[in-house]
Amino acid sequence: MNLLRVVATVVTAAVCGSAMAQNAAGTAAREYVTPRQAELLQQFEEFVAIPDVAADPAGLKRNADFLVAQLQQRGVATQLLTAPGLPAATPPVVYGEIRAPGAKKTFVFYAHYDGQPVTASEWTNGAPFKPEIKTVDGEQRVYGRATGDDKAAIFAQLTALSALQAAKMPLKANIRFVWEGEEEAGSAHLEQILDAHKDLIGGDVWLVCDGPVDQTRQQLLTFGARGDAHVQITVYGPDRGLHSGHYGNWAPNPAMMMAQLLAGMKNADGRVTIPHFYDGIKPLGPVEKAALKAAPRNDEMLRKEFGLGSVMGGDKSLLELYNEPSLEIAGIAAGQTGAHATNTIVATAMANLDLRLVVGIDAEVQQKRVLDYIKSQGYFVTSAEPTREERLSHAKVARVELKEGENASRTPMDLPIAAEIIKTVESARGKTVLLPTSGGTVPLEAMQRASGAPNVSVPIANHDDNQHAANENLRLKNLWDGIETMAALMEMR
Amino acid sequence: MNLLRVVATVVTAAVCGSAMAQNAAGTAAREYVTPRQAELLQQFEEFVAIPDVAADPAGLKRNADFLVAQLQQRGVATQLLTAPGLPAATPPVVYGEIRAPGAKKTFVFYAHYDGQPVTASEWTNGAPFKPEIKTVDGEQRVYGRATGDDKAAIFAQLTALSALQAAKMPLKANIRFVWEGEEEAGSAHLEQILDAHKDLIGGDVWLVCDGPVDQTRQQLLTFGARGDAHVQITVYGPDRGLHSGHYGNWAPNPAMMMAQLLAGMKNADGRVTIPHFYDGIKPLGPVEKAALKAAPRNDEMLRKEFGLGSVMGGDKSLLELYNEPSLEIAGIAAGQTGAHATNTIVATAMANLDLRLVVGIDAEVQQKRVLDYIKSQGYFVTSAEPTREERLSHAKVARVELKEGENASRTPMDLPIAAEIIKTVESARGKTVLLPTSGGTVPLEAMQRASGAPNVSVPIANHDDNQHAANENLRLKNLWDGIETMAALMEMR
Repeated sequence: MNLLRVVATVVTAAVCGSAMAQNAAGTAAREYVTPRQAELLQQFEEFVAIPDVAADPAGLKRNADFLVAQLQQRGVATQLLTAPGLPAATPPVVYGEIRAPGAKKTFVFYAHYDGQPVTASEWTNGAPFKPEIKTVDGEQRVYGRATGDDKAAIFAQLTALSALQAAKMPLKANIRFVWEGEEEAGSAHLEQILDAHKDLIGGDVWLVCDGPVDQTRQQLLTFGARGDAHVQITVYGPDRGLHSGHYGNWAPNPAMMMAQLLAGMKNADGRVTIPHFYDGIKPLGPVEKAALKAAPRNDEMLRKEFGLGSVMGGDKSLLELYNEPSLEIAGIAAGQTGAHATNTIVATAMANLDLRLVVGIDAEVQQKRVLDYIKSQGYFVTSAEPTREERLSHAKVARVELKEGENASRTPMDLPIAAEIIKTVESARGKTVLLPTSGGTVPLEAMQRASGAPNVSVPIANHDDNQHAANENLRLKNLWDGIETMAALMEMR
Repeated sequence: MNLLRVVATVVTAAVCGSAMAQNAAGTAAREYVTPRQAELLQQFEEFVAIPDVAADPAGLKRNADFLVAQLQQRGVATQLLTAPGLPAATPPVVYGEIRAPGAKKTFVFYAHYDGQPVTASEWTNGAPFKPEIKTVDGEQRVYGRATGDDKAAIFAQLTALSALQAAKMPLKANIRFVWEGEEEAGSAHLEQILDAHKDLIGGDVWLVCDGPVDQTRQQLLTFGARGDAHVQITVYGPDRGLHSGHYGNWAPNPAMMMAQLLAGMKNADGRVTIPHFYDGIKPLGPVEKAALKAAPRNDEMLRKEFGLGSVMGGDKSLLELYNEPSLEIAGIAAGQTGAHATNTIVATAMANLDLRLVVGIDAEVQQKRVLDYIKSQGYFVTSAEPTREERLSHAKVARVELKEGENASRTPMDLPIAAEIIKTVESARGKTVLLPTSGGTVPLEAMQRASGAPNVSVPIANHDDNQHAANENLRLKNLWDGIETMAALMEMR
C-alpha cells in the first residue's frame, strides 16, 4: 500500500469507527473507573494541590516524591533521575518500569508534572492550588494549575495501570514512565538527564501524553510538535521616572519605544514581518498533507467560542498555521495603568515574546532573526543591564535576553508502529483526528535524540482548559476517557 | 515703556540680580530658619507621613485637619471648604485668611496637599509615607510622596508666616490660603468649591506655588500652565487567555493590537501624528517670546543628568516644547513579563495616555482627536465594557474612557501686578527665570474663572525631585530658599 492509501485507510477507519470502545483494556478501565469516580477525583485533587511551578523547587520535589509513592503502591520499580553537574534544585525525572515476561516491545510513556507559573490574583478563587469542581454548561470540570497540562495524563496512566491490575490483565510489552518536572520551564535539562540514563529510557516509541484533544472533542493523535524559543526585551528611557508635563514630548518614553518596536514585527493580517522569519520551513510530505486535509476545520466554532470578531492568518486555517512559525507577545509592562496610572515617563519597558518553531527552523536561528530585527530598528543591543555610558551614547538601547529553546520535531505518519498506535486508540476511542504537528511544544526532539525512538502524541485534555492561563481546568469526561485510552495503549503487544 | 522693554528690563534685572537677598522679609525668614532647621525638618516629616493619595480619602482628611491646626496655631482664621452636592469623600479645600489693617490688596496663595498615587514596591525603602533624609552627591534631600509636589509649598508658607510673626513684621496686604486636596486627581471639584465661596477666595492675584524651579536651580516664575487630559484604552482579544502554541498567529493578540495602536500615534522624532493634534495653538505674544528667548537652555545638561542618548522634539528645545500639546504613554499592561511570563495570548491590554494642553486647545477637543484616531484605525469604540455581541461582531474593539480634563491658562507677563511680583521675588532670591508657561499642570483656569484674578506661579521644589514617580524627594536647600521667597511675597504691599 502506498503512503497515501495508508492514511486514507486510517482516515476512513477513524471516520467510521464506532463510538463504543471495542478494546478489552479500554472496557476494563471503564468498568474500573465508573463506580470509583468520586474516590478517583479526590485522589486527583490531592495531586493537583501540590504546587508545581518552577519558582518553587521544593514543591516540585514534593510532586516527584508523591509520584514515586504512587508507582511503588502499584508495584512499579521506580527511581528519580538526574544528571551529573546539574544544579541541586533541578526537578528530577520520575522514572518507572514494568517488565512483561516475553515482551518484544517497550513503550515509553512521557508526561510532565510541572505547571506554568501562576498569578493567583488572576484566578477566580485566588488559589491555583486549591482544586475546585464546577459544573459549567452541564459539564463537570476540575479547576487548578496543571489539571489539564499535564497532571491529567500522569493520573490517567496511574489509574489505567490500577484498572488493568484489578482486571488481572497482564501487560504484553514492557512499559516505562518518564515524567518530567521542567517542561514548562523549557525542558532545559531533560536531554542531559535522558543522556545520563540511555539504558533506562530506551524503547520502541515514545507515547507523549501532553496537550489537548481536538476542539470537536474527538481523540487526537499528533506526530510532531512545534518548538519554542523565548525573547525578553527591555528598552530604556530616562534613568528615573520623569514628570510627563515637565518632560513630555522631549524625553524618549520607553513605553512608546516598545510599542513601536513590537508593532513593526507583524502586519495587520498577523503575518510576521521580521525578515527571513518564515525561511527554511520543511514542507509536509503527501501523507501529512492528506491527514491535514482530512482533519476537521474548527476555526469558525472556535472564533465564536472565544468571542472573537475576526481571526488572523489570512486564508490559512488554524491547523495550517501550525505548520508555520509564530510570534506572540506574552506580556508588556511599562509604568502603571488604571487607578495606579501616574503622569510619568517611566525608566524602562519590558516585553516577553514567545516564538513557536517548525521543522527546518532552529531555535537559535529564529532568536537571531528577532535580534537582528531589533538592531535594524536602530537599537544598541546588549544582553546585560546597559551601563550609564552605553545609555548616554546610544539613542535607543535594548537589553535582549534569549533563553535556550527547543526545536520542533516530526515523526513520519506511515511508520508501522504509528499505524499500530492509531489502530489501538481507535479501537478504544472511536473516531480520531490525525495531525502532522501540534501547535504547542513538547520536548520531542530531545527525546528522539536521546533514545533514537520516534514519538507519537496522545493527548487527553480538553482544548478549552485555559491551559497556561488563569482558571486552568480539566473536563472530567476527558479524564475518564483518557484513562481508557491509556489502558488500551498499555495493553499493546 | 512698550511691552518688549518691560521684559527686557525684567530680564536684565534677573540676570544682574544679586545672589544675596536684599529683601527684609526674606532676611527675617533666613534668620528664623537657620538655627531651627532640624526642628523644622521634623515638623515637615510629620506632615509628609500623613498619606495623601486619592484612593485614601480618610488620609486626605487627616491632612486637611492637620493644616487647619497649623493655621490656627498661627492665629489664622480658617475653615474647610466644600460645595453643595459633592460626594461626602471629596477632599475639602483648606482655607485660611489674615486681614491686614489698611490693606489695599489681597494675595491668594494656592498650593495642594494631595500627592500622586503610589506603588510602594517601586520605592527604594518600600514606604512612600515614611520620610527619610539622604545625602546624595553632597546634597541633603528628604524622600517621600508629596515632599516636592506639593507639601513643600504649604510648609514654606506656614514657616514664612511663623518667621514674620517672630520678627514682628506686620503684613501690609490681606493674605488668603487656598490649599486643594484633589490636584493630582485632576481638580475635579475645585471650581465648584471656589464658586460656592467667591466672597472668600477673591483677591488681586493668585500666587500659585506648585512645580519645580528651573533646572539650573535658579528661581522660576511662570505665567501659565499647560492643561491636562487623560485617555484610558482597553483593547480586547479572546474572552479568556489562550495557549500561544495552540492559537498563536491565529487569535488576535491584544498586546500586539495595543502596540500597533499606540505606535501609530507618534513618529520617530516624537512628533504626534494624530490628525489635528497641534491645531489651534494660540501663539505667544512678543513679550512671552522675548522671555522664552532669554531663558536658559538646559537640554544638554538634562539629557546627561537623566542618562539619555538622545531627546525628541527635533530642533525644538524643551522650553519651546512647553508651548505645544504633548502625548505620553503613562503605562501599558498586557499579560505578565519577566519570571511571571506565561505562553499566553491574553484577553485584554490596557494603556493610559497623558495629554498636555496649551492655550487654544480644549481638553474635550483633544480627547476627541485621540478617540477619532482610534476609530480611524478600524476600532469599534465603546465607553463601557463591551458585550459579547459587540466583541463577536467587530474585528477590533476598544473601550476608551475619558476623564474630565483641565484647560491650559496664561497670564500676560506685562500686567502691573506681575511686574511687582517679579521685582519682589528678585529682591529676595536674586536672578530669576521667567517663562510664559510651565510644562506641568495647575488648575489655573478654574481659579481664574472663579475669581477673575490673574495668576503667577512661584514654584520652589527642585526639578530633580522624582515628582510623580517613585522616590519623590525635596532638596532641603530648596525648602529653605522657598521659605524666604514666601516670606517676601507675604510682605508685599
